Order: sequence, then structure tokens, then C-alpha cells
Amino acid sequence: MIENRDRAMMARAVQLAWRGRYSTHPNPRVGCVIARGDLVLGEGWHERAGEAHAETRALSQAGPDARGATAYVTLEPCSHFGRTPPCARALIDAGVAHVYAATKDPNPSVSGRGLDMLREAGIRVTEGLLAEEAARLNPGFMKRMNTGRPWVRLKMAASLDGRTAMASGESQWITGPEARRDVQRLRAISDAILTGVGTVLADDPSLTVRREELGDIGDATEPSRQPLRVIADRDARTPSSAKILQGGNVQVFCASSTLATAPAQDLAALGISLTGVAWKDNGIDLAELLDSLGELGINELLVEAGPTLAGTFINENLVDELWLYQAPVFLGSTGRPTAHLPLETMADKVQWKVLDRRQVGEDQRLILTRR
Amino acid sequence: MIENRDRAMMARAVQLAWRGRYSTHPNPRVGCVIARGDLVLGEGWHERAGEAHAETRALSQAGPDARGATAYVTLEPCSHFGRTPPCARALIDAGVAHVYAATKDPNPSVSGRGLDMLREAGIRVTEGLLAEEAARLNPGFMKRMNTGRPWVRLKMAASLDGRTAMASGESQWITGPEARRDVQRLRAISDAILTGVGTVLADDPSLTVRREELGDIGDATEPSRQPLRVIADRDARTPSSAKILQGGNVQVFCASSTLATAPAQDLAALGISLTGVAWKDNGIDLAELLDSLGELGINELLVEAGPTLAGTFINENLVDELWLYQAPVFLGSTGRPTAHLPLETMADKVQWKVLDRRQVGEDQRLILTRR
Repeated sequence: MIENRDRAMMARAVQLAWRGRYSTHPNPRVGCVIARGDLVLGEGWHERAGEAHAETRALSQAGPDARGATAYVTLEPCSHFGRTPPCARALIDAGVAHVYAATKDPNPSVSGRGLDMLREAGIRVTEGLLAEEAARLNPGFMKRMNTGRPWVRLKMAASLDGRTAMASGESQWITGPEARRDVQRLRAISDAILTGVGTVLADDPSLTVRREELGDIGDATEPSRQPLRVIADRDARTPSSAKILQGGNVQVFCASSTLATAPAQDLAALGISLTGVAWKDNGIDLAELLDSLGELGINELLVEAGPTLAGTFINENLVDELWLYQAPVFLGSTGRPTAHLPLETMADKVQWKVLDRRQVGEDQRLILTRR
Repeated sequence: MIENRDRAMMARAVQLAWRGRYSTHPNPRVGCVIARGDLVLGEGWHERAGEAHAETRALSQAGPDARGATAYVTLEPCSHFGRTPPCARALIDAGVAHVYAATKDPNPSVSGRGLDMLREAGIRVTEGLLAEEAARLNPGFMKRMNTGRPWVRLKMAASLDGRTAMASGESQWITGPEARRDVQRLRAISDAILTGVGTVLADDPSLTVRREELGDIGDATEPSRQPLRVIADRDARTPSSAKILQGGNVQVFCASSTLATAPAQDLAALGISLTGVAWKDNGIDLAELLDSLGELGINELLVEAGPTLAGTFINENLVDELWLYQAPVFLGSTGRPTAHLPLETMADKVQWKVLDRRQVGEDQRLILTRR
């Protein structure tokens, strides 16, 4: 029987895990509490890849008191030697009596092994407590382990009449400073940010996280790196002077036939990584792109693109979450559409479910998913 | 000194006035409470033009107890003989000692006269208690008395990507049943509903209040009539079979030169009222139209029109409130725009202030005003 106390302990473990929201990638965010009854003996969370796992940190805080205690972990403890020894082994060695695991390891090849290891050592194991909350910590890690592809968030800033820019392309600033800060947080939780070369040529964005604009991050671990900047650029037209190339950590996806051309080689000479993928009539082959990004360990992908690329993502039903920032303005009927999305009849309409809606400064932020 | 008790009594008078929201036109909504200390002696509100005013009803309920009591009225009591005797006189005759009036009569030619009449009779008069709440009862009456024009509400139903219909014109149903019921209420508080002949030809709407769709109206007085249906129709192209003509109570505004033509005379033969007004390149001369509607006693005008007429209202800054129903769908970039509104630069953008935002079924309703 699960008691309120157990629920509270797991909720605390989830809370601890969130501290790693800007820093654990490509690893999942994980939290752990070691307790005896109401008494918390140790708390831990994963901070950065290569550093201690949540369980190890919590156990080391608990020390010898961990013997006979209960461990609450948001994700099944690992059973294999990676960059650190297996956490299941550490829990066994510490003499923990009972382990609550909110979610199983989503990697099909190891899922359940950590829990089996614990059971075989005589530890009582309870699965599934706050499973939904724990899964929400790592939508990208969960999806990548299951499908090989990242979790896709499409971000848009639009007017109430559905325009993202004037006909001239002028678009700064539709939304207010609070929304822009919110986007900084969104970038910071992302492993990669994707845009198209059209946006690079038109707006020359840097698509970086600017620490000072991120504001107070509370008890979260400091971001450990910039997200990977990804450009869909069939013909390698990204200019070497583009702001997005500054500071490196850029991946260009071009047509395979482009790889041998001078523009591609110029970019490669700057240290930019280029990968050839297939292109279709309506642009890059998104399936191939997402597979590639999954292979690069990208859990959470943020798409900040123009109407064409955005429209393709929506049209091919590849958006997991649409983050729509709506400014209380009309940009007029000549403005650029939210997304290039040619639909014929009402039956074709794209139906969204509103997961979250909140005021961000003067603007409204909607998080939507396909119904 | 105004006490909480006085505030509560006036709030009650405002509440009573709202009961007339569907029925007082072209008169204002007015409420009245007669009280002695905490004891309410009489309550009244105006129900329909030609019937008793709020003060008369409250006084008759209070009877002889009104002597020495306090009256709370949301609007300055009238001082002139209209269809009923002046309320200021009735309050004097009843021996009321103190009158709180939330707002003055907005009609510049009589404003203040009722209060003066009370003061001259030795009654204590306090102005302005809950003035804002009381003014909100009658935005149209207030505006018409001050400017000769009705209060303009523009209603739109759009998708999150700012489309009101598919390219084909197909538009039923973007919003859900709750939003449609809400629009029935909006129609019912309106004195007139304006549309363009393009909408009549394309959609053949009836633009009536359907009592059964209005749902439970609580303690409000039953709607006393259909709002006047108004069609902007330069060449009198409205077909005699159009649903909007059924049941009469229709006003067509056409070009003055159209009045003598056969189509106009055919409409006139059906009992439809036609008025000639000026037309400009971008459509009907809205200033002249609004002046005409003001002369017809229209306090609150609801515009339910296509993108052209809607766009002209916005462009000429003639919208007092934009009621935007947003459905959680995308209709695509080929869909019809919210409003025909050609804007060049971000500096031209139309900035709205959000007066109200609420969930109506699956949809979101925004009430906006120009910033």
C-alpha cells in the first residue's frame, strides 16, 4: 500500500530532478530521496553527464543510515557500467530495504534490468508511483529511447490574427520581454535548436541561450553548454559570417550532393559539422533529420523556424508540443502566416489540445499538442 | 462619507439594472434601491421602453416608507415628461431624503437637470458612487448620447492561426456550441446586427436571436424583440429569399443612386427599409452609417461581417470592443484572414488591450479594445 508519505517523498525526488533541467543532457533528469519513515536521510539529483547519478549522491549523504531505509527514485536505477558504476549495485551495497521507482528505464534493451537486480538481491521494489510526473521530466529521453527520435517542440510567436511578421519580413518584436525571457528558458532546456537557412539569411539569429536573459534560475544547476544549433540548409548557403556559427557547436544538414561542393567545404573548414540527408519537394526529409538528431543524442529539439519548415513539421504530424506565444496585436492580412500549411476543407483542419495556457507579460503562451 | 452599506446598495441597484439587459432598448438599463439604513424598502429596474422606470417601481414597492429614506439609482433620474412622468418628481413627491446617483444622464441637453431638481427640493444628492460599474451597464446609450453613434462590437470567430474560413468560404463550425450560445447572448444585448451583402450571399445567415439557443437567462427580463438586422449593400443585391429578411425588422443601407433601381424597389416592396448613404473606395462610409444608426436609436451595434467590412472597421478605428472567439485549431495558410487589413510595417500594427479573456467550452473568448 502506497501512503501519502511515500507520495510526498517521490514528489520531492521529482522536484530534485527538475534542478537538472538545464544541465543533464544527454542524460535524463533524475532525482532520489533516501528516507526512513518521515525522516529524510539523503537527497540527490543528477547534475551533468559524467558526474554522479542521483542515487549515488543521495546514498553518500545518507551514509551508513541507508541500511534498511527506503529509496525513492524517479527513474529505474541503471544496471550497467557506463561512465559511473551501476546505481542498482550501489543501492544493494548500501543495504537499502525498499526501492520505489516511478518509471522504468525507457531503453528497451535494459528496461527492467535494474529493478530485477534489486529484487534478486532481496530488496522490495514498488513501481509506478508518480509515474506521470516522473515521465514528464524527460519527454525527450523517453521518446528517443523508444523511437530513436527527439521530442519536438515547435515555438512560434504570432499575432492574434495569426501573423509572425510583416510582408517585408519585419518581425521584431512581436512579443514582449517576458515572452522572450521565457523562450530563453525553453532554449536552455533543449538539447538542440533547429532552424532553416531561410531564417538564417533573413534574420541572422544567434539562437543561443544568453545567460543574463535567462534570469534567476533558482536552485537549478547552471546550464552546462549551449544547445546544438542545427540548420536545415540544402545547398550550404549559410554565410561564414552568420551569427549562428559563432562559438561553434553547429550542425548543418544539407543535401548529400552538396557535401562535395565549395560552400559545404568552406563551412567544414570553419569546423562546422555537415551531414547529408535526403530532400523532398517540400524541403528536408524530416524523418531522416529526426533520426539523425536522435543518433546525436538529442533528447529535446526546439524548432524555431520560418513558416515553411514549421508548416512541414505540422503537416507531417511531427510536432509533440507547439509553444505558441500570442501577442495582443493584429499584424494585418498582408503579414506572413504562422505556418505554411495549405488545407482544403474544414475536415483537414489541425485540431489542438491545450495542455497549458498562461499569461507571460502582455502575451499569452499556449502549449498545444495534436488532438 | 460613503459607507460600505451605500456601496452594497448601489451594487444591488447595478445588479437589478442588468436584468433589463435584453429588453430596455432603446432606453438605458437602470436599477434602483430604496433603503433606510440596512433595510431595503423597495427595488426596481427598467424592463422595457414605455413601461415604468426603475425609480417608480422601487418607490411603489416601498410605499409610504419611502419618506425620509435613501434612494440609490444607477443613472440620474429623468427630469422631463417622456412616455412616463419624470422620476425626479416622483422621488421628491415620495419624500426621499437622500439620493445616490452613480452616473449623470449622458444626454448633454438634460445632464444634471434631474439632480438639480432634487437638490432644489432639498434632497441631499451624492454623485458618482460605483460610476464605472453603472456606466458599463449602458456603453451604447452613453456613447450615443455623447456622439450620436452606437457602441460598436465587432465579433469574430477565428482559428489560432488567424483564419475565419477555408479558401472556399467553408466556415461551419470553427467554434463549439458553447461559443455559439455565447454569441446568441451577444446578439440579444445588441440593438442591431450589421453585416455585409457579401456575407448574406455567401452564408445566408438569419442573424436572429434564437430563444431556445439563448439558454437560461436567469432573472433577466425576456428579450422583447429581435435586434434590427442591418445590411451594407451598395447595389441592393440582397435576394428576396434571403433568410435575414424573414420576420422583417431589416434596414438596408445602399448607395443613394441605388434607391431608384429595380432591385431596391423590389426590396422596398417587401417592406424592407432602405436608406441611401455614401460609399467610398473601400466600401460603405462607416461614419455616415454609424450616424444613421444612432439616429435610429441604436445603442449597441454588433458587427458580424466578412473580412472586408471587419477590416474597414478596424482600419478606421471604429471598433469599441472586439469580441474574438478563438478555436484551438489551425485552418491553414490558405484560409481566409481574420480581417482584410493591409499593414506595411510593425509600426502600423494594431495594438489591443485585453479587457476580458475566458474559456467558453473548447474555445477562448477575448474582449479587446484598442490600446
